Amino acid sequence: MSNRTINIGLCGFGVVGQGVYEHLNSKRQALRELLCVDMFVTRIAVRDLSKKRDVEIDESSVSNDPIAVATDPSIDIVCELMGGTEIAREVTTAALKAGKIVVTANKALLCDHGRELFSIVREFGGHLLFEASVAGGIPVIKAIREGLVINDFSSIYGILNGTCNYILTRMANEGLSYQEILVEAKKLGYAEADESLDVDGIDAAHKAVVLAYLAHGKWVDFKNVRLMGIKDVSQEDIRFAKDNGYAVKLIAVVNKERERKALHVSVLPTLVEKTSSLGSVDGVYNAVSVHGDVVGETVYIGPGAGRHATASAVISDVVDAAKLLIFRGPEGRFPIIDLAPKNGGCIEVSRPSEIQSRFYIRLVVMDQPGVMAEIASIFASHQVSLASVTQKEVPEKAERASLIITTHSTTEEAIQRAVVDLGCLATLEEEPFCMPIGTIS
Amino acid sequence: MSNRTINIGLCGFGVVGQGVYEHLNSKRQALRELLCVDMFVTRIAVRDLSKKRDVEIDESSVSNDPIAVATDPSIDIVCELMGGTEIAREVTTAALKAGKIVVTANKALLCDHGRELFSIVREFGGHLLFEASVAGGIPVIKAIREGLVINDFSSIYGILNGTCNYILTRMANEGLSYQEILVEAKKLGYAEADESLDVDGIDAAHKAVVLAYLAHGKWVDFKNVRLMGIKDVSQEDIRFAKDNGYAVKLIAVVNKERERKALHVSVLPTLVEKTSSLGSVDGVYNAVSVHGDVVGETVYIGPGAGRHATASAVISDVVDAAKLLIFRGPEGRFPIIDLAPKNGGCIEVSRPSEIQSRFYIRLVVMDQPGVMAEIASIFASHQVSLASVTQKEVPEKAERASLIITTHSTTEEAIQRAVVDLGCLATLEEEPFCMPIGTIS
Repeated sequence: MSNRTINIGLCGFGVVGQGVYEHLNSKRQALRELLCVDMFVTRIAVRDLSKKRDVEIDESSVSNDPIAVATDPSIDIVCELMGGTEIAREVTTAALKAGKIVVTANKALLCDHGRELFSIVREFGGHLLFEASVAGGIPVIKAIREGLVINDFSSIYGILNGTCNYILTRMANEGLSYQEILVEAKKLGYAEADESLDVDGIDAAHKAVVLAYLAHGKWVDFKNVRLMGIKDVSQEDIRFAKDNGYAVKLIAVVNKERERKALHVSVLPTLVEKTSSLGSVDGVYNAVSVHGDVVGETVYIGPGAGRHATASAVISDVVDAAKLLIFRGPEGRFPIIDLAPKNGGCIEVSRPSEIQSRFYIRLVVMDQPGVMAEIASIFASHQVSLASVTQKEVPEKAERASLIITTHSTTEEAIQRAVVDLGCLATLEEEPFCMPIGTIS
Repeated sequence: MSNRTINIGLCGFGVVGQGVYEHLNSKRQALRELLCVDMFVTRIAVRDLSKKRDVEIDESSVSNDPIAVATDPSIDIVCELMGGTEIAREVTTAALKAGKIVVTANKALLCDHGRELFSIVREFGGHLLFEASVAGGIPVIKAIREGLVINDFSSIYGILNGTCNYILTRMANEGLSYQEILVEAKKLGYAEADESLDVDGIDAAHKAVVLAYLAHGKWVDFKNVRLMGIKDVSQEDIRFAKDNGYAVKLIAVVNKERERKALHVSVLPTLVEKTSSLGSVDGVYNAVSVHGDVVGETVYIGPGAGRHATASAVISDVVDAAKLLIFRGPEGRFPIIDLAPKNGGCIEVSRPSEIQSRFYIRLVVMDQPGVMAEIASIFASHQVSLASVTQKEVPEKAERASLIITTHSTTEEAIQRAVVDLGCLATLEEEPFCMPIGTIS
């Protein structure tokens, strides 16, 4: 670093890329004071050269070839901010094979190709930093990896998708249906035109997989994540929650089972106590509750997305990358530390019989004699003990009734089997809706 | 680091020292996997050699000479966990002058001697790390310094003293007086035999001064911290809070005024909205709300004290120190980065005329005609506009009445002057009790 400048290449110049560019430029003086180097964005790869942008950039630094930017020998740090998993994978791979430090906000990329990318890091001596990939502007990756370094993590719970939390919060506050709020959210820019990545829980599941790697050194296959989105959450569920001191939240769980040390990763609508650390986090905010064996519970709350919050996280990685470059000196390789989290690779995925929780089940049934007895006997046959049964009084001539059941603690396996059997009842009018209550253990 | 071991010296072997020793030993294998070095506590300085301890240690490593431990050439990292500011200062100074990395949990030491200690760091090329000094196990120092590195911090609000938060929470839940809860808290070990460092707000003020340095690079003199403890908080204040959607919390504020960029540091009982990020943090928990110009608000909640939580934070610094040692190689000095936070040393302390807030004032007055008129005219004479006035109905023959007044936004200067004038009223039976409402700006 004899010339005391660090050159940054941005691959991707959308909302986040422009935010990173803007804040790196406006805070250059402060960063120089901190690091004694100047940092410049010297190359930018865009998809469409002709597109108009919010920020003014030197046109000579712009190209539409991200691989060229990623492998340019003059570039010290590559920020992969394109999204998607195909070109992003090529770009990240190319930069890492050139021994560079890559900063990414791309949870889908990490979830699908993290194992391979980190093995390239080990082989070629670069680094891959990803603070912005989970919980946006909240520095929770750094907290788990460095701040809580001495801890084993029995469980991590998170509200990891702001769109879902926004929709669920407005459903609770305004009494409107999922569909009605979704339409509004799209108008206001809180939901994408294609909302499925968010509302089906896929985005949160990508992030949960990243957290599981971070905490336990294991890349859990996406297909092993127990996943349900928020589309089927109804006003009845929300009302039950309110009446009983809960809130419905889409909760990501990374849980290490005690006996076999098996990992459980799920993203499910969940009844959480309103007064708990996650129960009161509303709107587009994200929150992560981390349980460490030494420290106990720590909770992190903040904006989970957006141009500025995400740029704040990306730039924290850029600064860490700059420190690595400064430390390394002109010829040395980076020390390979922080790459292999504890217990790397040796943890099994939990079996449903190992996952304990209380559960909430909503059934829409024909209003006729004997239905309740049938249902109760199905739960009994799976040794599921009921904690409460609620059927709101229905008019004499109504043909269907909603039945809300909560259980005492049982296994995921027992509840899955009970739900399958319930689904076969001739008196059932809709698929049963089921979610955990409180924290899974 | 050719032999791949790092030797740690503990100065102080009380609750925290023993926690650090225990967890460094029990997690040695995990730390070796992470860092590719072995870390050993090879020397321990205790005050009393004959005292019995919870953990078994090799007696040959123990001495009662902390300076000898701090300056021992075989020791790479010195943990100053003694408390107090005299011997701790000597020990820290000696270790830093030997070019060592010192890890401390001692906020009083930093508050009183931080300026001097960091100048020794700069001169002799060591490091001084202090994650455990604020908010115990919550990695908020790392969050502010590294995770939010690109941000300027307009304001930081914190619940930084677990004892005060425990007492205020129980006062609210049980309707008992400060004195009654204090006696209980001492019995249960939640308050020290001499409680004044906690309940007078001194401990929280030390921490606020550390946060102000961290965020703004300025050591604010302790005497410039606006400071009031919780002793005068009464059940009337707590009830008013509850009835109006607030909670009474001891809130530390580090605020940068916009115009002159002057710093305001205070620790005061405060009415905070019950639904705000700090309003729902109860019991011994700590919480810090950080407002950054890029990221917005992020909030950090967790255990603020205790053997294990504090050890978790101390060890995170020890691991960072180990990385610095590994990076440095056998002969090099540490790169001097992260030492001079942004805007180092050039910020003024706010004047009362620059501090804006709403205020709550409780007056105990003689129940006689004309009192209200006198009080109202005093506020008017200082251009303080009243938002509400509450006097609970008193029996016909009562001689004194409590009057609770809330104001619209005004300056600290105006409220101070009004309170001085109120204190001169012949009809006043007690000193006025005054606290801010919501966030200071």
